Amino acid sequence: MAGSTYGNIFKITTWGESHGKALGVVIDGTPAGLSLSNEDIQVFLDRRRPGQSQFTTQRNEADTAEILSGVFEGTTTGTPISIMVRNTDHHSTDYSNICDVYRPGHADYTFSAKYGIRDFRGGGRSSGRETIGRVAAGAVASKILGELGITLTTYVYSIGPITISESRKDLSAINSNSLYMPDNVAADEAASYLASLMEDKNSAGGVVECIIENVPAGLGDTVFEKLDANLSKAISSIGGVKGVEIGDGFKSAHLTGQENNDQFCTDENGFIIKKTNHSGGILGGMSDGSPIIIRAAFKPTPSIAASQLTVNDKGENITIEIKGRHDPLIAPRGVVVVESMAAITLVDSLFINASAKMQTLKDIYK
Amino acid sequence: MAGSTYGNIFKITTWGESHGKALGVVIDGTPAGLSLSNEDIQVFLDRRRPGQSQFTTQRNEADTAEILSGVFEGTTTGTPISIMVRNTDHHSTDYSNICDVYRPGHADYTFSAKYGIRDFRGGGRSSGRETIGRVAAGAVASKILGELGITLTTYVYSIGPITISESRKDLSAINSNSLYMPDNVAADEAASYLASLMEDKNSAGGVVECIIENVPAGLGDTVFEKLDANLSKAISSIGGVKGVEIGDGFKSAHLTGQENNDQFCTDENGFIIKKTNHSGGILGGMSDGSPIIIRAAFKPTPSIAASQLTVNDKGENITIEIKGRHDPLIAPRGVVVVESMAAITLVDSLFINASAKMQTLKDIYK
Amino acid sequence: MAGSTYGNIFKITTWGESHGKALGVVIDGTPAGLSLSNEDIQVFLDRRRPGQSQFTTQRNEADTAEILSGVFEGTTTGTPISIMVRNTDHHSTDYSNICDVYRPGHADYTFSAKYGIRDFRGGGRSSGRETIGRVAAGAVASKILGELGITLTTYVYSIGPITISESRKDLSAINSNSLYMPDNVAADEAASYLASLMEDKNSAGGVVECIIENVPAGLGDTVFEKLDANLSKAISSIGGVKGVEIGDGFKSAHLTGQENNDQFCTDENGFIIKKTNHSGGILGGMSDGSPIIIRAAFKPTPSIAASQLTVNDKGENITIEIKGRHDPLIAPRGVVVVESMAAITLVDSLFINASAKMQTLKDIYK
Amino acid sequence: MAGSTYGNIFKITTWGESHGKALGVVIDGTPAGLSLSNEDIQVFLDRRRPGQSQFTTQRNEADTAEILSGVFEGTTTGTPISIMVRNTDHHSTDYSNICDVYRPGHADYTFSAKYGIRDFRGGGRSSGRETIGRVAAGAVASKILGELGITLTTYVYSIGPITISESRKDLSAINSNSLYMPDNVAADEAASYLASLMEDKNSAGGVVECIIENVPAGLGDTVFEKLDANLSKAISSIGGVKGVEIGDGFKSAHLTGQENNDQFCTDENGFIIKKTNHSGGILGGMSDGSPIIIRAAFKPTPSIAASQLTVNDKGENITIEIKGRHDPLIAPRGVVVVESMAAITLVDSLFINASAKMQTLKDIYK
Repeated sequence: MAGSTYGNIFKITTWGESHGKALGVVIDGTPAGLSLSNEDIQVFLDRRRPGQSQFTTQRNEADTAEILSGVFEGTTTGTPISIMVRNTDHHSTDYSNICDVYRPGHADYTFSAKYGIRDFRGGGRSSGRETIGRVAAGAVASKILGELGITLTTYVYSIGPITISESRKDLSAINSNSLYMPDNVAADEAASYLASLMEDKNSAGGVVECIIENVPAGLGDTVFEKLDANLSKAISSIGGVKGVEIGDGFKSAHLTGQENNDQFCTDENGFIIKKTNHSGGILGGMSDGSPIIIRAAFKPTPSIAASQLTVNDKGENITIEIKGRHDPLIAPRGVVVVESMAAITLVDSLFINASAKMQTLKDIYK
Repeated sequence: MAGSTYGNIFKITTWGESHGKALGVVIDGTPAGLSLSNEDIQVFLDRRRPGQSQFTTQRNEADTAEILSGVFEGTTTGTPISIMVRNTDHHSTDYSNICDVYRPGHADYTFSAKYGIRDFRGGGRSSGRETIGRVAAGAVASKILGELGITLTTYVYSIGPITISESRKDLSAINSNSLYMPDNVAADEAASYLASLMEDKNSAGGVVECIIENVPAGLGDTVFEKLDANLSKAISSIGGVKGVEIGDGFKSAHLTGQENNDQFCTDENGFIIKKTNHSGGILGGMSDGSPIIIRAAFKPTPSIAASQLTVNDKGENITIEIKGRHDPLIAPRGVVVVESMAAITLVDSLFINASAKMQTLKDIYK
Repeated sequence: MAGSTYGNIFKITTWGESHGKALGVVIDGTPAGLSLSNEDIQVFLDRRRPGQSQFTTQRNEADTAEILSGVFEGTTTGTPISIMVRNTDHHSTDYSNICDVYRPGHADYTFSAKYGIRDFRGGGRSSGRETIGRVAAGAVASKILGELGITLTTYVYSIGPITISESRKDLSAINSNSLYMPDNVAADEAASYLASLMEDKNSAGGVVECIIENVPAGLGDTVFEKLDANLSKAISSIGGVKGVEIGDGFKSAHLTGQENNDQFCTDENGFIIKKTNHSGGILGGMSDGSPIIIRAAFKPTPSIAASQLTVNDKGENITIEIKGRHDPLIAPRGVVVVESMAAITLVDSLFINASAKMQTLKDIYK
Repeated sequence: MAGSTYGNIFKITTWGESHGKALGVVIDGTPAGLSLSNEDIQVFLDRRRPGQSQFTTQRNEADTAEILSGVFEGTTTGTPISIMVRNTDHHSTDYSNICDVYRPGHADYTFSAKYGIRDFRGGGRSSGRETIGRVAAGAVASKILGELGITLTTYVYSIGPITISESRKDLSAINSNSLYMPDNVAADEAASYLASLMEDKNSAGGVVECIIENVPAGLGDTVFEKLDANLSKAISSIGGVKGVEIGDGFKSAHLTGQENNDQFCTDENGFIIKKTNHSGGILGGMSDGSPIIIRAAFKPTPSIAASQLTVNDKGENITIEIKGRHDPLIAPRGVVVVESMAAITLVDSLFINASAKMQTLKDIYK
């Protein structure tokens, strides 16, 4: 199945394996007239780059973006934007001992079950490097949203048992610690927690939160193309995500209607707003004008150095210790991936929404 | 936007409003040669039917399914199956007092923001009655899965603070209490909790769990069309769902890799299985042969009889008390909707998967 | 496969068989705020209705349209519009003698090859009655185009050897003869030709031409979603169509570049126009502002009363004479179907095009 | 709009401009287990390569294919196959004089109308070089079809007034003349015709025919996804194509039912076949087991050296003579593009068709 394309009229197609020649994305449906450079892409790619702290894989890739098409004299032309990143630091030999082994928590077994064959080098297409294409596309989507005044803020909300404190929350701290937490105290605690897990050859899970502001009310749809449904798919499709929630999410299942309903009122300018935001900015599948709030649960990195029991492709019971170079948690590098998938989803929704009213169409084609 | 169609090569299109003439679905892509009758559909519709207990709306609809096409002499022909349910008991006058009011927690405001116009009778397209089409399609999808040996079991996992007990869990109890809980003790507690909320003109949230068994390993995809991503979208698209998780879900963000990794081993017949199922049956976006486990968080019913502050479409601050006939919680009637959306998603995935290997294609077209 | 849905963000799904209970369509993506009534649909359905002349089947169906959803107080709400037409005059017994026979020129054999089963009554899903859903959707699409000032004119261009004369061409004549030709002299000749064929138990082919005016320049796309590619698919998907051409079409393969190139110039108001229209209003896959010109070749009706050799589903060589009630040609009733498919395609293209430029998006979401 | 992706579960996405850094394609949905090398792609690319005779542009590009992903140890893995061709011989200065001119017969004007901006170098995305991605994908599709025993044969059927003779038709001649005609006598006549046009600074149109053999009966669909509808779209989407027909095509509009109906009979092995093939291998939208026959009309190359009147983007009336390096006709280099688009369409249809019958699904998932 063709499962590497996402979006309807803003559509991205990613390609590439962990240890292939290159990875990339084709972004189709970008409107003409957007200023775009390699640097715009690089800023996003650098946010997911490995080798930046003791908590990310020591694989050292520059991950340099090259725009190959769709931009003319610094401006998008409306044609597909192809972006490629060459693989440079892939040590295939690191992985030769696992070519016939089904690593616990990985896609090795399911990949073999589906295709009967797999590129075992570094997880092949199931590698976290697959997200390079998503992030390059996220850079373009974010730039489009920026032109329309819409902004996204994403950070690590919790690592294992350590959650950011609402009272200490400081968005300016996100880029001041290597764990992308908006709370330097929590980040310090999490760093100690991770250090101790790494000594144990173990790994941690975490939660990422994304806030989208200035979204006009009315984006999305009432039935299958609900904005939250599309955001859920977009973010669930990131490797390692095991749950997604909007607004109060699972907590709302414990609230009563009187607690959970957000009352409408008018602000000083007469605009309709909500007094609270339990809904997380989406009601009935459509944006309600409040900030959209999404949280994604990342499982712990399955690649751990501790000894594990498993089987190989002959069905023999064996023991493995995964050496390689692996992050002890996924969440911090997942931050920009979550933001990218949310941005891509929103752009598609904005484009589709342009035909919701007869009057808008008359204005466009007058 | 055309947001009422779901699926790729097994595709459903629903239509209809709460107080329109009828609601229905067109199911396209059903293979030829499946035995199908009105009764097969009716069994599913009856599971979501109102008026069956004190915890469901007293709106009394027979919700009788009529198959209009696609079935010839009791067997599907491969052509679209159109199923219609006439609306019979719609009291439009019940709703006339809210025609210009934005009810808290409802899609009234977002619908107006998107379209500039809305059918205010009973929520129009945003009504829970929209799920009639989903459930009729779910009946067909479940029948296809049944032919392939795949089964789904769905129930209420928690209501407000009351969660089923793993030790008391008894699937045969699901249909023996009006709350569809596999634990009659929990159901009794929940009934008391709900009775007290109803006295308060309040409502409750809840969680629904769905278990899918005998799914062959290898369904789904590595990137955007991950099986869990599609299940998340499918189930997030149900009205009132604010979060979806697979396997250990949000709990896995608190586990370590050593705790969360499921070890592979072989069973007595030499088949590869997992010792645990933290993954909830999906690894790297593809089914791993273990039961697929999904949980969906439903927010409390937004329609409550208590007095609430809100605004009307002129931006005036007003007070409303929602009379009408409303369930004090969504979860029990959501059970069959969750099961339907999961079944529809799985069928599409099975069909798409048929072209994953060259060898399968050679076998088909030999 | 789900093959009964057409379009991207303006999307139609048709259903129903010749002798089933009903036929219909779900039209999804209609913008809110369009005035729409049963009568709007009926006008289009009446143009394809049987029983109106000696050249159409004597099957006598009122084909009454019923809008079941998506319209509230006479105006579209943006939700799916479901339209149904009940079958009333289906004489199943007429067809019982052909239930196991593969009629030449029909889909009986291919249907059996694909599905292993078929509804043999009146061709089932392969019947011309399948177009009822297309035409009902075409009525909606045409109404949207009308609001934007775009008009379609469609007629029979030739019947067997008789082609309309450019010098006698008179659009007001289209509805004054039962063959929908814009040339009453040609229509008279064609009527004689058809009468003679009918005596011979034979049938005729024909060509339908559709002209679309006031289409803004720039609709469509450069690569796969070329406007002409989508129109070709739309119209090739009508039963009996064996060829589609745009502008000079096949004739352009005989022209030289100097003959075929349309020179640009400016009109008295300074607008850029073309001096000629060999291109048929589309250049490089995008509308060029000139009238769009499409022609579709319809094969002769395969149902003929003359004796024919064929085989049955046991592989026995037999002889059949198709009795039933059949048009001696498809083209006149195909006129409104061609127009409908063209209109539906254009609407989708207009909606998608709204996101072609950053500036348009800024204007919409300012 | 995202218009550079084609296909459903076998899906290709092309990118690149005439004078950009590179052009390419991502092919998604290739089954795992297909042997594939750069050479397989190169064979197809070489068939569309320029600089091979006096009738193709003297632009001299090696057009070397590089597979970047999706193939491991010589075999496809089921993941997206990214193929890139670097542009090497692009003389941008050749085109600087036309940067503000709307060339007759080209997409310059429509591109500007749609996007407000365009890459004027060599036509940008509207260039014939856009087909590099289609042809690379066609190589993969043809290889898949070859594994299933399906073959395609494509050639030039006519050039201007010169049509191949059925009596002289010799498929082995196709590659023995530079015009890809299966009739060396016609090729000689056409060469003289073209030489005389070139002296006149003029260009010619032509027709390409494609024959597909050994297609199993029953591929395609009854309504919108008719196999002929999809082939028509696929081939109409090739630059310069103004008409497509299947089987007898437009000629069938002049035939009677008795002439046009293909009688069924059984062959010596008892298999059902047709005595004639007016239908061109497709009945009711589904393959009927006979060879599929498609013809595409290519307009004359719009780039001619003769002086032409036109306007520039300021609306000034001017005269241009297009220098550059241009083929005097499109058809010969269009041969492999037509074959590629047909192959890609068939593969998608084969994959989708795998779920047409319940029994096939039971066989796959037993």
